[in-house]
Amino acid sequence: MMIIMRAGASPKEIDTVVERVQSFGLRAHISTGEERTIIGAIGEGKTVYNYMDQFIRMDGVDRVVPISRPYKLASREFRPDVSVFPIDGVQVGANEIVIIAGPCSVESRSQLLETAHAVREAGAHALRGGVYKPRTSPYSFQGLGEAGLELMAEAREQTGMPLVSEVMREEQIPLLTRFIDVLQVGARNMQNYALLHAVGESQHPVLLKRGMMATIEELLMAAEYILSHGNRRVILCERGIRTFENSTRNTTDINAIPVLKELTHLPVILDPSHSTGNWSYVSAIARAAVAAGADGLIVEVHPKPETALSDGRQSLKPERFAEMVQQVKTIAQAVGRDVAPVPAHQTSTQAQ
Amino acid sequence: MMIIMRAGASPKEIDTVVERVQSFGLRAHISTGEERTIIGAIGEGKTVYNYMDQFIRMDGVDRVVPISRPYKLASREFRPDVSVFPIDGVQVGANEIVIIAGPCSVESRSQLLETAHAVREAGAHALRGGVYKPRTSPYSFQGLGEAGLELMAEAREQTGMPLVSEVMREEQIPLLTRFIDVLQVGARNMQNYALLHAVGESQHPVLLKRGMMATIEELLMAAEYILSHGNRRVILCERGIRTFENSTRNTTDINAIPVLKELTHLPVILDPSHSTGNWSYVSAIARAAVAAGADGLIVEVHPKPETALSDGRQSLKPERFAEMVQQVKTIAQAVGRDVAPVPAHQTSTQAQ
Amino acid sequence: MMIIMRAGASPKEIDTVVERVQSFGLRAHISTGEERTIIGAIGEGKTVYNYMDQFIRMDGVDRVVPISRPYKLASREFRPDVSVFPIDGVQVGANEIVIIAGPCSVESRSQLLETAHAVREAGAHALRGGVYKPRTSPYSFQGLGEAGLELMAEAREQTGMPLVSEVMREEQIPLLTRFIDVLQVGARNMQNYALLHAVGESQHPVLLKRGMMATIEELLMAAEYILSHGNRRVILCERGIRTFENSTRNTTDINAIPVLKELTHLPVILDPSHSTGNWSYVSAIARAAVAAGADGLIVEVHPKPETALSDGRQSLKPERFAEMVQQVKTIAQAVGRDVAPVPAHQTSTQAQ
Amino acid sequence: MMIIMRAGASPKEIDTVVERVQSFGLRAHISTGEERTIIGAIGEGKTVYNYMDQFIRMDGVDRVVPISRPYKLASREFRPDVSVFPIDGVQVGANEIVIIAGPCSVESRSQLLETAHAVREAGAHALRGGVYKPRTSPYSFQGLGEAGLELMAEAREQTGMPLVSEVMREEQIPLLTRFIDVLQVGARNMQNYALLHAVGESQHPVLLKRGMMATIEELLMAAEYILSHGNRRVILCERGIRTFENSTRNTTDINAIPVLKELTHLPVILDPSHSTGNWSYVSAIARAAVAAGADGLIVEVHPKPETALSDGRQSLKPERFAEMVQQVKTIAQAVGRDVAPVPAHQTSTQAQ
Repeated sequence: MMIIMRAGASPKEIDTVVERVQSFGLRAHISTGEERTIIGAIGEGKTVYNYMDQFIRMDGVDRVVPISRPYKLASREFRPDVSVFPIDGVQVGANEIVIIAGPCSVESRSQLLETAHAVREAGAHALRGGVYKPRTSPYSFQGLGEAGLELMAEAREQTGMPLVSEVMREEQIPLLTRFIDVLQVGARNMQNYALLHAVGESQHPVLLKRGMMATIEELLMAAEYILSHGNRRVILCERGIRTFENSTRNTTDINAIPVLKELTHLPVILDPSHSTGNWSYVSAIARAAVAAGADGLIVEVHPKPETALSDGRQSLKPERFAEMVQQVKTIAQAVGRDVAPVPAHQTSTQAQ
Repeated sequence: MMIIMRAGASPKEIDTVVERVQSFGLRAHISTGEERTIIGAIGEGKTVYNYMDQFIRMDGVDRVVPISRPYKLASREFRPDVSVFPIDGVQVGANEIVIIAGPCSVESRSQLLETAHAVREAGAHALRGGVYKPRTSPYSFQGLGEAGLELMAEAREQTGMPLVSEVMREEQIPLLTRFIDVLQVGARNMQNYALLHAVGESQHPVLLKRGMMATIEELLMAAEYILSHGNRRVILCERGIRTFENSTRNTTDINAIPVLKELTHLPVILDPSHSTGNWSYVSAIARAAVAAGADGLIVEVHPKPETALSDGRQSLKPERFAEMVQQVKTIAQAVGRDVAPVPAHQTSTQAQ
Repeated sequence: MMIIMRAGASPKEIDTVVERVQSFGLRAHISTGEERTIIGAIGEGKTVYNYMDQFIRMDGVDRVVPISRPYKLASREFRPDVSVFPIDGVQVGANEIVIIAGPCSVESRSQLLETAHAVREAGAHALRGGVYKPRTSPYSFQGLGEAGLELMAEAREQTGMPLVSEVMREEQIPLLTRFIDVLQVGARNMQNYALLHAVGESQHPVLLKRGMMATIEELLMAAEYILSHGNRRVILCERGIRTFENSTRNTTDINAIPVLKELTHLPVILDPSHSTGNWSYVSAIARAAVAAGADGLIVEVHPKPETALSDGRQSLKPERFAEMVQQVKTIAQAVGRDVAPVPAHQTSTQAQ
Repeated sequence: MMIIMRAGASPKEIDTVVERVQSFGLRAHISTGEERTIIGAIGEGKTVYNYMDQFIRMDGVDRVVPISRPYKLASREFRPDVSVFPIDGVQVGANEIVIIAGPCSVESRSQLLETAHAVREAGAHALRGGVYKPRTSPYSFQGLGEAGLELMAEAREQTGMPLVSEVMREEQIPLLTRFIDVLQVGARNMQNYALLHAVGESQHPVLLKRGMMATIEELLMAAEYILSHGNRRVILCERGIRTFENSTRNTTDINAIPVLKELTHLPVILDPSHSTGNWSYVSAIARAAVAAGADGLIVEVHPKPETALSDGRQSLKPERFAEMVQQVKTIAQAVGRDVAPVPAHQTSTQAQ
């Protein structure tokens, strides 16, 4: 880090800072400018970052500027190659785009199975469905819980698709992982560190959604929590951030796609349903995401969105979703990629 | 709610919406404008709110506008008088201002006890101190846990001050409530609904911090979660929101003070340490909060901020804090209030 | 508009509102709910909008909700077909994508001509170049002024490309329009109504950039200013908005592309240079824009970005720009469009 | 500035940067860390700032961090004492609080004169009134223009109060300054550099409003434009920023008060009418502003807000304004200040 002294800091103040730098086992490097002195504290990145707060309040100090990034395991510098890992037969992070689709909430057997077959036929690779729902209002539908998981399991049996579902509390992990292939950490829990710790200790891939108020750096720090507890299979998901613009539910931060692809080796997907909040913009933003370099998509689909218990406004009908997949395929090919094929064993399962 | 049809919606589309309104047991009221038809769906507030999503996707519908507020127990309409309740002898929500102070994290016995005595003498009514810390980096100090709670208990014994500490997971509640008087729900957990549910079932007062990207309405919905599970003793805390401005850590939403005082009967306090992120602005914003109508303050104090393991930048030294209390007292009197006196039994305890 | 009365508004308050609605020549339509009364004020959209402020302060009124949109000439309802108009031979708003490219600032004859030839060869349709520069610092380079315009004219002569340049003050219009084909209104001037009025009275096409703090509705209102003064040739440009995210200079609001295409008939382009602020993300976001439905792009190109007097960080080198055009072409074809061909008469000019 | 090289930058890349630093007449100072090299470019602050863009694109460079602030004349370092200057007999920036009040727009003779007398009696020191109105909609009331100025002059004659009015275009300056004492630059024009330049050359005090999406640093840069053209009498005005919160029109950035008082010597006032957008919060925020250290207030007052042609929602009635002044006076005294007395010659004028 660079410790920037105020204009007019005294030699004694400078010396005291230098001594503290050295007391932490760091090397101090002094630059004397026309107006100010700057002290570089040199050591291993992660360590230095932890000491930043210790200098800001010292006499004569104006600012402290970090030089190294505060995350390591998530960085491209740590691992230059893209992380590629399978979700039950489909590779995530590879050259081919992966599409996760399904209803916001599991509502009923017929709703889930109808959706599952439809998205499977349209080309989806995994089935999403919420059984524990984080709802802003305590009076809204809170999810079916374990009964929903059993319906999910039935959908997998029928379609062969691996399952993605949100975990809200660490106690849910044992039950969820009996049924579910990918644990989703929702936007509101991106900085629920107890939960990050717990999914970091599980053996299941994690789909980590960016908080609507989180910077890209904070998203990577949240991933670092999971990685640092031993789980290396983390998928990052941009799902829109909160801004002053109110013609859409959130603002899709499309810049985050190339920024994340530069900073991290983890796979990056986009959720155009939440990032727009309006089904009529979902296909356009899905195309944009793949054009910008996303490795996949997660999309809400509902057979009768106008009766959905949650997120009906932003859910695609199955036929629209099928169109979207075709459009995304064309875009993927235009950027030298493709949409991943649906694994054969799934098809056979579906045929049963 | 008002269901606003698109210009040119067909009579059939209008009829279908009206039928659905009626199918939910609501009354439909139709206004026919020059360009558009508007259908009012009339019933009890909370019920109507739940059905909003069910109309937005219907053919011919342009927008759905809620009329009633989505929270009830937290509203002034439900309870016109301000909620006043005691924290171990000090009334919160009353005419007199309550001040909670202490270190960001409990670091050591001497640090905590020195701070506790200092803030007690300066006029603080309760002691804050984190033992479980939500930290952005997995490599930062995570809190002392149970050992910290025992130090907190010792501080209470010596000073008589009730204790405030953050709960991050519901499993921590039994342990925390053995030691702690007020459960703090941090900004990052404001929408951790599992946690809100759990503190709603406890018998302890809850200090609910506004999320840094949460609207005032969302804060009230989070309070509604707690209230609806039976706990009526909720203190709301403005602690700054995230904006584009970066000369301070957060932007104090001072407007939230009069807005909340208008919308809700719950006590409202402000945290100028987090809302500015810089000790040199804390006193000014503490004064502003009380001038604007806040019922209290929560302030970070550290005997040696330049060595603090967290939040050193924004912590006041004890002598500055004492000045702040005096300034706040003068402001409180200028608006016809005062700073609450420190309960006598505390003084006797301290004398032991 | 709908005038929503407070719960418990008195019959007299309701009557007074109804009388005022009628006094403005509007029809009042009363809905009586369980808790509240709602009064619809029915008349022609634009008129009603002007009266909104007149009701909000009346006794018993809680809120006023607009029903119609506040702009008309810019709306799709006013003109369902996309506006297509030529800039010196190239159609803007048509099925084929238009690309405007060039340096942020005109710095020198060689810099401009080298860039002009390079972008022309790569497939650009118009040349951008600033001669009056809005700079945050009074000590930064402020543009070459008229001398820059003469260089622009020379570049047109050599390459045949029409010219785009920013107007900062209405007095600059006569001079600028002697040289320039498209008047650009910059983001910082999007709500400089005197300037909008003046370009509205000119006969030149206007490229209107969205303010970094402007909502989509405000952008359309700014366009309405220009349209209402008689100039129907307005190109809207998304160039990124200001948010809390700071890893990029601005946040590209990619959602704005499909939203604008839905709301307005005006052509919509995107400026990936400003919306990212970093050359290494420009191509990804250019592809995303076209995938999402943009009608064109405006891109900063500089032969030696590392010596540019402004915006060097976000300028593409000519060879990167040529790659970007090829990528954009592939994406355009994937969505059933194409990049517009470079007009033949330009080629002949260039050959001179 | 500090030029931070990428981890792994080659010695040749480092040398090239050093050479360029030296080619600008700056001294280069090299720090070699474990992972990265950092090159300090040392020279006079303002000069260095101009060169920042020139390094960011060089090979091997990761980031460039400014050390000095980009403004000078506006800074406390340049002028440690607060700037105090008179507006027609009332000192702005002194220990005593100055209050500017009046209608958003001048609408009619009776409206203006009634308001002027009322605010004068309540204790206001200057009269505000818009005659050129920046309106989002081209169909809204645009102001009375010169006729409004003549009404303003009459109000001054009757009450003795100096006048504040907004300038939207530099051509308006000669006319405005025949009538008006303080030129207001509105929020939407805070980065209209042509206008800043022009008011910088006038001899009239300038009230510069912060743009609703401008950082504090940008506000100070805008002030620097005015100061650098020779006009040293600039009053800064916080008027709320745009954020995601929508229960108020803007978010009052109360932090900006102590931050500005620390960074600049210029007087700082607050506009609680715009910063809340709702009359019922104006007094609370006015009190908060003075408690936080503001040097004054500018407040919208209208005798019949429910009929106002603009901003009726946020205008105080005269009797509410009088209450507000009394509250502000008590707060001012609580922080060791007072509200400035109304100059005697004004009273005599009023008595005529």
